[in-house]
Amino acid sequence: MEKRIVIIGGVAAGPKSACRVKRLLPGAEVTIIDQDNLISYGGCGIPYYVSGDVSDEKELRNTSFHMTRDESFFLKAKGVTARTRTRALAIDRKNKTVEVEDLNSGKKELIPYDNLILTTGAQPNILPIPGADLDGVFTISDMHKAIAIKERIARGEVGKAVVIGGGAIGIEMAEAFTDLWGIETSILEFMPQLLPRLVDWDFARMLETHLTESKVNVYTNEGATAIEGEEGKVKRVVTANRTLEADIVVMAVGVRARSELAKAAGLAVSAMGNIMVNERLQTSDPAIYAAGDCIEVKNMLTGKGGIAPMGSLANREGRIVADNIAGIPSIYKGWIGSFIMKAFERCIAATGLSLDAARAEGFDAAQATTAQSDRAHFFPTQAVIPLRLVFDKKSRRILGAQGFGPMSDAVLSRIDAAAAMISSGATIDDVSQLEMAYAPPFATALDALNATANVADNLAAGRLRYIEIKDFLNWMDDFTANPNWVALDIRHPNEAKIFVEKYGADKWLSVPYVEIRERHQELPKDKTMLVICDAGTRSSEIQIFLDHVGLTDNLVLGGGFNVIRRMGLTWWPS
Amino acid sequence: MEKRIVIIGGVAAGPKSACRVKRLLPGAEVTIIDQDNLISYGGCGIPYYVSGDVSDEKELRNTSFHMTRDESFFLKAKGVTARTRTRALAIDRKNKTVEVEDLNSGKKELIPYDNLILTTGAQPNILPIPGADLDGVFTISDMHKAIAIKERIARGEVGKAVVIGGGAIGIEMAEAFTDLWGIETSILEFMPQLLPRLVDWDFARMLETHLTESKVNVYTNEGATAIEGEEGKVKRVVTANRTLEADIVVMAVGVRARSELAKAAGLAVSAMGNIMVNERLQTSDPAIYAAGDCIEVKNMLTGKGGIAPMGSLANREGRIVADNIAGIPSIYKGWIGSFIMKAFERCIAATGLSLDAARAEGFDAAQATTAQSDRAHFFPTQAVIPLRLVFDKKSRRILGAQGFGPMSDAVLSRIDAAAAMISSGATIDDVSQLEMAYAPPFATALDALNATANVADNLAAGRLRYIEIKDFLNWMDDFTANPNWVALDIRHPNEAKIFVEKYGADKWLSVPYVEIRERHQELPKDKTMLVICDAGTRSSEIQIFLDHVGLTDNLVLGGGFNVIRRMGLTWWPS
Repeated sequence: MEKRIVIIGGVAAGPKSACRVKRLLPGAEVTIIDQDNLISYGGCGIPYYVSGDVSDEKELRNTSFHMTRDESFFLKAKGVTARTRTRALAIDRKNKTVEVEDLNSGKKELIPYDNLILTTGAQPNILPIPGADLDGVFTISDMHKAIAIKERIARGEVGKAVVIGGGAIGIEMAEAFTDLWGIETSILEFMPQLLPRLVDWDFARMLETHLTESKVNVYTNEGATAIEGEEGKVKRVVTANRTLEADIVVMAVGVRARSELAKAAGLAVSAMGNIMVNERLQTSDPAIYAAGDCIEVKNMLTGKGGIAPMGSLANREGRIVADNIAGIPSIYKGWIGSFIMKAFERCIAATGLSLDAARAEGFDAAQATTAQSDRAHFFPTQAVIPLRLVFDKKSRRILGAQGFGPMSDAVLSRIDAAAAMISSGATIDDVSQLEMAYAPPFATALDALNATANVADNLAAGRLRYIEIKDFLNWMDDFTANPNWVALDIRHPNEAKIFVEKYGADKWLSVPYVEIRERHQELPKDKTMLVICDAGTRSSEIQIFLDHVGLTDNLVLGGGFNVIRRMGLTWWPS
Repeated sequence: MEKRIVIIGGVAAGPKSACRVKRLLPGAEVTIIDQDNLISYGGCGIPYYVSGDVSDEKELRNTSFHMTRDESFFLKAKGVTARTRTRALAIDRKNKTVEVEDLNSGKKELIPYDNLILTTGAQPNILPIPGADLDGVFTISDMHKAIAIKERIARGEVGKAVVIGGGAIGIEMAEAFTDLWGIETSILEFMPQLLPRLVDWDFARMLETHLTESKVNVYTNEGATAIEGEEGKVKRVVTANRTLEADIVVMAVGVRARSELAKAAGLAVSAMGNIMVNERLQTSDPAIYAAGDCIEVKNMLTGKGGIAPMGSLANREGRIVADNIAGIPSIYKGWIGSFIMKAFERCIAATGLSLDAARAEGFDAAQATTAQSDRAHFFPTQAVIPLRLVFDKKSRRILGAQGFGPMSDAVLSRIDAAAAMISSGATIDDVSQLEMAYAPPFATALDALNATANVADNLAAGRLRYIEIKDFLNWMDDFTANPNWVALDIRHPNEAKIFVEKYGADKWLSVPYVEIRERHQELPKDKTMLVICDAGTRSSEIQIFLDHVGLTDNLVLGGGFNVIRRMGLTWWPS
């Protein structure tokens, strides 16, 4: 008899493994079970459906060749039986059956399996605050929620929105509300920065500044303490600092694995509720596999487990499960955390560990930051892309990369190249020499990523000394914190002028880059000079020269004005 | 005494190593010698200067902070002496001096060195044909040539242009002539395809089709046999097949290393005239280093040496030379051949070896080709990007990648990621699992590069059988070549219709993808079926199903219509 494969969960990993199993074992009897009537949709596309970029929800369920992935499609095109509106109630591992209930008829039955695949996904967290159950409070958990949100907006019922949670989904939803619909939107983030853990605070700050420019109100360090309504309908969100009116509230505060079935069946589940799997994505029962948002997967950099709820990983994992079931040994090595998002006219992306995350994980880590052009500086469409590499000081291994730039694929290409390097265990030197494709419309001769690795090389070897951006900004807020510090602005005097005027020539020295070699004797010997330019490159060079002439008490601001200008600082002269 | 470093050649590798030496050894006395008066320019930007995208030649010599890299800049900003209009006549290795001549005064002198760096670059080949020396025949060798070309155009003297050589520079120049200036331009390429050796013929063909659409005349398999003029001025280019009128001719037929000085000094030089260096980029004289277009460097994939005249590599090499001179051991591992170019509204890129090159090098290589979306297919700006991975069948190692797509960074990001994987020795499986950053505006959940690796996996494992595109096209040109072949077009019948009408229902079977499982008994058992769809994905799936039901005589057209449509085929029904 041919193998019977039963899959519980029909969004991403489930359909992927179903179709791959069927391609490897064309005779297999493959059944997908899902309690929803809509399956196999691009959940990551929900914000673009809400915004109107995607006009019809069906587009999120369509193939690239314009067929809708419904029950009929799976049967006819894939030879896979999709049983929608069918809830899995229990797994009987001994008899290898799944008990299911038809949600239309209420009928229950047992479905036998040779292999079972759990792709039960994750469910959104709901904050335990008053009013979380009011009408108009949504999580982004499935297509029905997306459709309901868009209908409300289309009916003109939404003038103001509050998004609770400053992660990727929250920010994408805020853009969807604001950009096309003109809804007055606020984001509340409990942590001190947007995209906590994903990027360092200064990259998050560049994003925050752009969101503010784009008319989204962002409140960090500020959680929702209550949601208030009238007649059961949401009206306001209350924080420690303010009350925000809201016709709609989106709660995007993370997800947790759906593992109740697995747990009830006695499968190994972590303390956090994640389904435990081995490298072949087999659960503690060898006949049962699991993939997608519900499983605990190893981070390749830290070696630690956790959920990694990404549609991209779900697809990779689904394929690996299918291979193993079909007898093709296939190993999942783990994830590194590659991530990208659009925010209005900007893009932010990262891979691997942020500096904060790397240090929290016990690495003796440092960072190199540049702010160079994405393409030849003489090419008309060039733009500055701040980039950061995080590295282990001793082993020189690259641990992470972050980028911020215009809404193009320029940041994507550097982050994907960095992801490839990181997953192969690359060092600073490998990235420094990485032979990226070059022509003036696409890159600089020494690509921005190579240049960032070169800065990392100089830092790791002690040939370059940074001042942390945070320390620089703190000093700008209050000079008395470090009375001995002065800024040495080596840009053109016209650029430095407003700073000299505002802060005084004793605190803000202006000596242009090309004059330092002639004029270094004017520089103070008893001060700590903070050398600043636009991108950090010239400053690094000047540091070496100053050291050479004995003015060794100096530090460089990595990324320079190109970075801090994007952070929207209050001390900036207007 | 501080080290004296003398550098011969001031375009790319030379200035790079000069500045880096000075940063590592701030006390060193660093001198660049160049016979030209213009140095340190972005030679790769010349086509964009000629086109007008870059308005002033100075922009190619400017830093990102808008200073011109002239003698004064090098001295004041970098502490480097640049002696322009100064020709190096001979190297005295025993006494460690370079004899130079001041081209303005005619004065000769000896410059002593502790380390000498040869960055003498490459010179363009000139075809040994009559008329190559006529006025109006140019090579793209330096800024003066670029300025002269642009002046002629600006004076309205150029109505027709012929570019001899269909490599990257030739094509970029053809675009520069055509796009802004409206010059009627023809490209002559002696080899059967554009970009010979860089990409496979079918990718070159997609480019050629777009050039033709963009009003550039492309003649492959056709070399110039003579250039004719009147009163010393170019008028025509003659080939075996035609005579092309020309007010200007650009000869872009490759370069060769400038190594006369090195050779005369008794340094090891290859039979091709390339300066031989070790991994530290030291010549056969340990006190003399060399970098850039003039050196023989090892291809990491083939292990073979040759020149690799790329501005991107020159910069990497210049840094390595400086490090070694300053006592920082630094190794150049070799190059892989990453490349990208803009051609009007398209972009073509590659890294590593093409299929043809890999086979010529003795690899038992195969290729996987896809034509998927660069971003989520529901995202409004999505476009198809044909991608190819070349791999070694046995070791499954990735040997190369090629991409063609719209003028964005979408192809760049896949090629750079592939370059990172290739340089780390990655296998098909590594690329399959590579965790690229995903969000719908930037990629698909399983990125096009991952998907291409998955196809390679299926091919390498024998789960997928291709028909070579060339064989398919030959058959389309002449059915009698393989009378037993039929096309099985599994796209929507509306799409297949014109082909069925033109070629007949016996040669062009139309059975849509979703109906194959029901209707497979209608299919012929005694024919070889060539399964075709838009991207190749559905065809692969159908192949497995056909095999399963015993119809094993079938082959899949990788990349499908999305690839061959871009090739501008004569048999295409209109």
